Amino acid sequence: MHRYPVTVHYEDTDLGGIVYHANYLKFIERARSDWVRALGIDQVALRREGVIFAVHHIEAWFQAPATLDEQLSVHTSVIEAGVARLVLDQQVYRGETCLFRAQVTLVSMTTEGKPRRLPKEVRALSGNT
Amino acid sequence: MHRYPVTVHYEDTDLGGIVYHANYLKFIERARSDWVRALGIDQVALRREGVIFAVHHIEAWFQAPATLDEQLSVHTSVIEAGVARLVLDQQVYRGETCLFRAQVTLVSMTTEGKPRRLPKEVRALSGNT
Amino acid sequence: MHRYPVTVHYEDTDLGGIVYHANYLKFIERARSDWVRALGIDQVALRREGVIFAVHHIEAWFQAPATLDEQLSVHTSVIEAGVARLVLDQQVYRGETCLFRAQVTLVSMTTEGKPRRLPKEVRALSGNT
Amino acid sequence: MHRYPVTVHYEDTDLGGIVYHANYLKFIERARSDWVRALGIDQVALRREGVIFAVHHIEAWFQAPATLDEQLSVHTSVIEAGVARLVLDQQVYRGETCLFRAQVTLVSMTTEGKPRRLPKEVRALSGNT
Repeated sequence: MHRYPVTVHYEDTDLGGIVYHANYLKFIERARSDWVRALGIDQVALRREGVIFAVHHIEAWFQAPATLDEQLSVHTSVIEAGVARLVLDQQVYRGETCLFRAQVTLVSMTTEGKPRRLPKEVRALSGNT
Repeated sequence: MHRYPVTVHYEDTDLGGIVYHANYLKFIERARSDWVRALGIDQVALRREGVIFAVHHIEAWFQAPATLDEQLSVHTSVIEAGVARLVLDQQVYRGETCLFRAQVTLVSMTTEGKPRRLPKEVRALSGNT
Repeated sequence: MHRYPVTVHYEDTDLGGIVYHANYLKFIERARSDWVRALGIDQVALRREGVIFAVHHIEAWFQAPATLDEQLSVHTSVIEAGVARLVLDQQVYRGETCLFRAQVTLVSMTTEGKPRRLPKEVRALSGNT
Repeated sequence: MHRYPVTVHYEDTDLGGIVYHANYLKFIERARSDWVRALGIDQVALRREGVIFAVHHIEAWFQAPATLDEQLSVHTSVIEAGVARLVLDQQVYRGETCLFRAQVTLVSMTTEGKPRRLPKEVRALSGNT
């Protein structure tokens, strides 16, 4: 499992005094980018070669609110890695409390939208969550 | 069904030249606020009385990309209105093409997190989508 | 003078219950895009030809806060239009009250960063604010 | 001088492939929050006591673009600390290159908008940049 730290900033909050719901998608996206980098994949170089990861489907549960200055941790693990499709489980914790959970399906495609094999570093993870 | 227009601005795009995925959640939230306003509900006044709508669960499908300056339309309809729970179907169209679809579950609660009855204007919609 | 309407959404607010300061830059950027469009300039086509407008300098005064659901109006006028440089005055009003004011300097350049003449539609405005 | 690291994420970029200009204000705000925290000031507690820091004026120079995955550093130093007014110089670097620079004036006030003395930890910095 991959862990990624997030601090709650002013920009993340809304008038309710808590993190605006859509911003959790940003938090988990940062974690995915860091995870991909940790696997040795250079997203910028991949894109230059015409390969991108696109978010295809997200199911998300908003369980408890987070507030300013809190230190959160995004836990990312692979549920399933197919040929061109990757399903991740991503959870945002404050200490032992899970605040947000999402199941995210990504697809690997060319910039023209044609399916492309996932990078071998990702396919190698299949089953090793 | 409620329709709400959205224009794609620079701030909505990412380096892929398309709308950043998390921003669709902002688009559909603007549409919900407008829909609630159209029902005659004043969210600001409700909050002052200690009642809020919180996003509880979202399932979202990212179907096609949108680009700068495009005029989109968010279509919102009620799937189910319970006592304190509201399920909406929200779709983002460019012309006849559905780019994004979400099923959003909201709960009506006090600012302390206790369930509260939905405003009567919302409960009246049950079954009338 | 060009006027552009902005509604304050949840996403624009912060825990202080008011519009997060950086978001005024988004509001005035939307107004600039609309203004450019109204002049008959297609930013997307221009970029395809390798010409962009880049923000070079901003001086901004935050005068009064805005809150959820408020209807604001961005007033944009040209202070100076040079060969490759454009200086705008942009003010955000709620009714008669000016909440935010900025003087924004834009430069017209190629995507490689070389200065480029402003589109003739913009240069024609010089002195006609 | 205070240094604060920022990584450029997808959410920060726009269709130009670079950091969207308004997001530099977010970067430097994160740095200010960290700086305040490092001085031993708890912004959340201060706000509970009815004291806030509001951005009053910003002058900003956009000098060079930043792109995805780049590691930036925000350098913050005090230009002037008055009774209720603080002027900061904030610069965003990539390595030795300054990409963005801002002079930011903050005011210390009650949540009702009345001027309030800056916390003593801040006033003590006057002249010690």
